[in-house]
Amino acid sequence: MSQRVGDEVTKAMGEIRSGASSRRHGDTLPHIHKVGSPPKQTLFKEIKDSLAETFFHDKPLSKFKDQSFFRIFVLALQSLFPILEWGRDYNLKKFRGDLISGLTIASLCIPQDIAYAKLAHLDPQYALYTSFVAPLVYAFMGSSRDIAIGPVAVVSLLLGTTLSDEISNIKSHDYLRLAFTATFFAGVTQMALGVLRLGFLIDFLSHAAIVGFMAGAAITIALQQLKGFLGIKNFTTKTDIVSVMRSVFQAAHHGVNFRFAYKFTLKWRSSLICLNLCLQWNWETILIAVAFLTFLLVTKYIAKRNKKLFWVAAISPMISVIVSTFFVYITRADKKGVAIVRHVKKGVNPSSANEIFFSGKYLGAGIRIGVISGMVALTEGVAIGRTFATMKDYALDGNKEMMAMGAMNMVGSLTSCYVATGSFSRSAVNYMAGCKTAVSNIVMSVVVLLTLLLITPLFKYTPNAVLASIIIAAVLGLVNIEAIILLWKIDKFDFVACIGALFGVIFKSVEIGLLIAVAISFAKILIQVTRPRVAVLGKLPGTTVYRNIQQYPKAAQITGMLIVRVDSAIYFSNSNYIKERILRWLSEEEAQRTASGFPRIQYLTVEMSPVTDIDTSGIHALEELYKSLQKREVQLILANPGPIVIEKLHASKLTDLIGEDKIFLTVADAVSTFGPKGEVEV
Amino acid sequence: MSQRVGDEVTKAMGEIRSGASSRRHGDTLPHIHKVGSPPKQTLFKEIKDSLAETFFHDKPLSKFKDQSFFRIFVLALQSLFPILEWGRDYNLKKFRGDLISGLTIASLCIPQDIAYAKLAHLDPQYALYTSFVAPLVYAFMGSSRDIAIGPVAVVSLLLGTTLSDEISNIKSHDYLRLAFTATFFAGVTQMALGVLRLGFLIDFLSHAAIVGFMAGAAITIALQQLKGFLGIKNFTTKTDIVSVMRSVFQAAHHGVNFRFAYKFTLKWRSSLICLNLCLQWNWETILIAVAFLTFLLVTKYIAKRNKKLFWVAAISPMISVIVSTFFVYITRADKKGVAIVRHVKKGVNPSSANEIFFSGKYLGAGIRIGVISGMVALTEGVAIGRTFATMKDYALDGNKEMMAMGAMNMVGSLTSCYVATGSFSRSAVNYMAGCKTAVSNIVMSVVVLLTLLLITPLFKYTPNAVLASIIIAAVLGLVNIEAIILLWKIDKFDFVACIGALFGVIFKSVEIGLLIAVAISFAKILIQVTRPRVAVLGKLPGTTVYRNIQQYPKAAQITGMLIVRVDSAIYFSNSNYIKERILRWLSEEEAQRTASGFPRIQYLTVEMSPVTDIDTSGIHALEELYKSLQKREVQLILANPGPIVIEKLHASKLTDLIGEDKIFLTVADAVSTFGPKGEVEV
Repeated sequence: MSQRVGDEVTKAMGEIRSGASSRRHGDTLPHIHKVGSPPKQTLFKEIKDSLAETFFHDKPLSKFKDQSFFRIFVLALQSLFPILEWGRDYNLKKFRGDLISGLTIASLCIPQDIAYAKLAHLDPQYALYTSFVAPLVYAFMGSSRDIAIGPVAVVSLLLGTTLSDEISNIKSHDYLRLAFTATFFAGVTQMALGVLRLGFLIDFLSHAAIVGFMAGAAITIALQQLKGFLGIKNFTTKTDIVSVMRSVFQAAHHGVNFRFAYKFTLKWRSSLICLNLCLQWNWETILIAVAFLTFLLVTKYIAKRNKKLFWVAAISPMISVIVSTFFVYITRADKKGVAIVRHVKKGVNPSSANEIFFSGKYLGAGIRIGVISGMVALTEGVAIGRTFATMKDYALDGNKEMMAMGAMNMVGSLTSCYVATGSFSRSAVNYMAGCKTAVSNIVMSVVVLLTLLLITPLFKYTPNAVLASIIIAAVLGLVNIEAIILLWKIDKFDFVACIGALFGVIFKSVEIGLLIAVAISFAKILIQVTRPRVAVLGKLPGTTVYRNIQQYPKAAQITGMLIVRVDSAIYFSNSNYIKERILRWLSEEEAQRTASGFPRIQYLTVEMSPVTDIDTSGIHALEELYKSLQKREVQLILANPGPIVIEKLHASKLTDLIGEDKIFLTVADAVSTFGPKGEVEV
Repeated sequence: MSQRVGDEVTKAMGEIRSGASSRRHGDTLPHIHKVGSPPKQTLFKEIKDSLAETFFHDKPLSKFKDQSFFRIFVLALQSLFPILEWGRDYNLKKFRGDLISGLTIASLCIPQDIAYAKLAHLDPQYALYTSFVAPLVYAFMGSSRDIAIGPVAVVSLLLGTTLSDEISNIKSHDYLRLAFTATFFAGVTQMALGVLRLGFLIDFLSHAAIVGFMAGAAITIALQQLKGFLGIKNFTTKTDIVSVMRSVFQAAHHGVNFRFAYKFTLKWRSSLICLNLCLQWNWETILIAVAFLTFLLVTKYIAKRNKKLFWVAAISPMISVIVSTFFVYITRADKKGVAIVRHVKKGVNPSSANEIFFSGKYLGAGIRIGVISGMVALTEGVAIGRTFATMKDYALDGNKEMMAMGAMNMVGSLTSCYVATGSFSRSAVNYMAGCKTAVSNIVMSVVVLLTLLLITPLFKYTPNAVLASIIIAAVLGLVNIEAIILLWKIDKFDFVACIGALFGVIFKSVEIGLLIAVAISFAKILIQVTRPRVAVLGKLPGTTVYRNIQQYPKAAQITGMLIVRVDSAIYFSNSNYIKERILRWLSEEEAQRTASGFPRIQYLTVEMSPVTDIDTSGIHALEELYKSLQKREVQLILANPGPIVIEKLHASKLTDLIGEDKIFLTVADAVSTFGPKGEVEV
């Protein structure tokens, strides 16, 4: 209704109310609408619906309905391999987009792969193997059109630290085998989550926790690069910031370590000699690293300023690798202490099916590491997939994504790959380069294959310093300072979760950071369900709308009545609190009103609109509330109980106790029935 | 307003609407009330308020405000020892009630104590010690007026099974020491929960889970009594129903056990001889047990039918003990295989301060058992306290209760007691006998002391069979079949939790049952926060009220607009689901409306009333929803965001994106602004 007319109606109602205010309480009038009870459902249907909403809320089977057997078979195949569906509409125009984007992400992924393999303490070729097999499998099974699959920094770091905790000799063959084992079980975990439709479990890692975790991981990864960046030979194997900084400064000031320096001083040698002998920073290395890091950051900055020049940032790592490799080759800088890649094995992936530990002492560790890294990889991959799906507005089936990622890691673990997932930086480049479908992943995969077959020996002279620069430039994008500031602005609790995860990762370890993130996320849920809000409502002047008096200071309370709204389902975890909170509101209001000379409260109206569900504990709490109110000679009134609540109120016969005439469709109905004699400004 | 007048207003509004329906979309009109933003709070205040609501929602410190130093000291003492507060009003009339009820519960507690001690595999005097010290401490510190303190069946059983799992030789001194250690840490746990104000943790054990757990424990305890009831000598130490029934039938048919019988049959002896030799059921014992069980059940039935005769049931255990003891003494039935108590140590509690393991290999077990039994005891005690507090309508301070119970168990552990808590059966008798304050516990305690000092030797000839009957009669009341049926009627999920806990206890063990109960309770919370309901709303004819169309089939949808209500706070755990669910509603509705020839949906109104909070993940989901809707050329409208939500929408600048003119106080406002051209019956 329009404002003017609304005003008139309101005025009319105001008059009506003042006229009716002399009515006695209790002369209940019939209302236009009774509180509705939905049709009763059988137990089977109820459980079925509940399970369906939990596990099959996207109704994956609806399309199979009323189809012929052959059609169902085709649909099932298409559902497992979406490429069969979108592949039929594939055309040359789409291929042009995919070819260009595929070539672009390939040029970005090869140098990143070689660098990330170091984070996992694996030889460079394993990351290249991963970038060959995983994208191929994903292209057939995945439903995202923009994601670029391959090894990523955070998962590589997570694998590197957890695997080396288990097997400290990172050069041993067992280490490699454990990596494949973990990859296999990561795939199994992901596949299981998808098949069992437990995809919602990854939703328990909150956005805030992920932002903090990623930022922490990025800082940790960047700090790890100081080894390659400064050319330090003896570097800590720990990842926490304290150990790393100690390593860096010990290398600068004292040489290998304090104990070594101490020995020298014990023997009364000149500590100056020691300093010179042991200074581990290598200036040639630093020169290369700084030069190329500057180059990479400048190109990133250019791409950021002008979205059309995204390709400048995309190919700059490849250029850096080529230029630096050539430079080292002609100057033979490797003889002056510049560390180089030295060896990348040529040839296509060997089978690793026999390498996986299916028994023995490392099986447990493999499963544990696999589950953790599988979950982290999934979280990252699905988050990226969702981001780009939203940008292009297509549906991403979370459970299908999990099955695709699970399959690609299981296949990967049999073909010498380690855990792959969607890379944020490469997916963004893929998107900007105009990819249309997952074919861009196939193009990238083919390029990586050609690289493996033909040009890996050329990487021999690639300096580690340039790889460190590439990693630093790549992971800096994961520190999303704007997002952290936004967290602070929007939700302080989220900010705490974020900073907790961040500090956990950089001061302790990746797993501890993850643990903190999950723990804080759960704590938040628990607080939410234990301490829901109970608001006091008042009437907005000139309307029949009742709102929280804290949000609407103009809202006026009703004489002789207290209206409260319970802002949550009433469950065992909060039923006692809600009951006590309502009674406390009543006592406080009563004290205040008595002090102000207003009549005592005779009616307590509970607005039940937000109470979507109630369990037996909640029913008991309501019953206890009713009894407590009876003792205080206050009538309990319920307004707008929802379908499930009203059904349970009926089932428990609580409606008989409270009285059907005390249950109203709206608060306004309750107020009009139980005679407001005026409004109270409390 | 009255119904008739309401009709007129409604009609008037109907006319207004039909008149206004030719208005074009978008000519937004000013509304009476804007969506309110509460005054901005500082971070410190926000965190303080949140913590205060979580841990100090009962405002325990409010009474200390603006008081003199001396007064604060007195108030603090009173708060720690409520007896100082209520003791001042104590008078002879109250004492009369307390004396009678105290004597009644004493007569009930002494036979129960002797019986329950057996469940914990302890000598009878330890339960009597417990009934002397614990009620005294509680009387000074507790805030319940009706609870009767002492050893209880479920906790005794829990202690018995967990302690004997640790130390299988239940006659060893270490077993006794471990019992004291567990009692000490049970007290520490309870005290810590109270002091740290973590009392809400026990709310996580749902009512349903407790009902199931108690019923399971009662059945298990009753089955254990078959040993005493049937006079079986070799009985299993396990508590699960399968082991127990096997024990019972092996004793009946085959003697000691199968292996023994097997040996005989191997030697080709007559199996008949074996049967006669080894039949372990003792008919004299069975006769005593059945006779007294019948007596106890009949008195219970009488008391149940006529509430005034409650004392008949209350003193019947004592009568049974006296009569059966006298009977055994004169017939010397103990020489015919009737097992008797044999020995109850005379005298007051010895100190056990030096017996507690504060180090050594049993410390860990002691802490673990203590924490579990402390939590279970607390849950039972607080539940009982709350029940009676509601009946008499006085406030029970959960955290204070925990401190009182913690103190009484810590003191108890130093004075040869084991874990005590509130007993349901004795508290009910206490209540019915007209207790006024905790003084009835003091009376009981004094009677128990006199018993210990004077008459314990008389219990020598008490047959175990009568104790078994007393336990069976007592615990049958814990199997609350009506409550279980009510669970089934009200909430199927609660029923599953209840049955899960019940089966867990009777088929496996008390701890497993407890674990199942907690796990199901948590699963319920997780499902609740992951899959909230999203309802489609329609307009109730003749009103401006919008309600769930499933609950109100008459509610009509609006042409060109879909109205959905999100029934939960939007958090990371459900934000993706909510977004996807809303989009699915949109697609489904659109398909349906297009099929029915209605115009396409141009507006999506999200009723935010139940959305009490939103976090950054939720903000992102809304943003993604907005973008998806933009792609589909549907406008997003928000109705009635709450105080926290609107603040966060502002902070995240999402209000700018959506447009302030798309945020309304009510759904009706939104509908009136964006021109409904009529109603759709979909």
